[in-house]
Amino acid sequence: MNVRKFTITDAVMDRSPGQDEDIFAGNLVDEHDGAAITIGYGRYGPDVSLTETMAVDDVMVVLEGRISVLSETGTVTAGPGEIVHMPRGQRVTIRSHETGAVTAYVTYPHWRTARS
Amino acid sequence: MNVRKFTITDAVMDRSPGQDEDIFAGNLVDEHDGAAITIGYGRYGPDVSLTETMAVDDVMVVLEGRISVLSETGTVTAGPGEIVHMPRGQRVTIRSHETGAVTAYVTYPHWRTARS
Repeated sequence: MNVRKFTITDAVMDRSPGQDEDIFAGNLVDEHDGAAITIGYGRYGPDVSLTETMAVDDVMVVLEGRISVLSETGTVTAGPGEIVHMPRGQRVTIRSHETGAVTAYVTYPHWRTARS
Repeated sequence: MNVRKFTITDAVMDRSPGQDEDIFAGNLVDEHDGAAITIGYGRYGPDVSLTETMAVDDVMVVLEGRISVLSETGTVTAGPGEIVHMPRGQRVTIRSHETGAVTAYVTYPHWRTARS
């Protein structure tokens, strides 16, 4: 594998599986690329939310807007330049605010959903 | 492990090992935290560079400024909101520009340096 640079326009954004709100994700590096991690961008419309049980460790870096994550220990809210780590096994509700949000994400191992 | 949010002021920034330029890194999640990944922030002064052989897969999300990465396949340059993936085994020279740079990073497995 070579050193690669990505920008959000490189990502093919698809609606995140299992939901029909305006939450889109586009992988740039995944299980086809030979590394153990998935890299991508996420885009959230205004005031949308998604509840899932994390099947992977997911690190979100907020690039635009704000994201709140509710878990059993409370709610954290992150804005541009801030990071949220959602460990594997956690049940989370990810919610955008009125301006929507753009995120970069890295997961280990490769991203997949595990709904309960 | 719980869901956690980080901002750059949470990171204790130390000079990146093996060099005495103004390149600092601060881990927020590492081998003490029970996940397989390291998460942190990096800060680069103006026009500094660092050459290393990647011992891990390292994903940098540029938050401020610009970073160029030279490898055997050429040079990529990333600005705010852009991502550079430096796969394990690659020999890279990471260079900042006149404004310096701030990055968020995620590595798998845990970050360490391997100089040759």
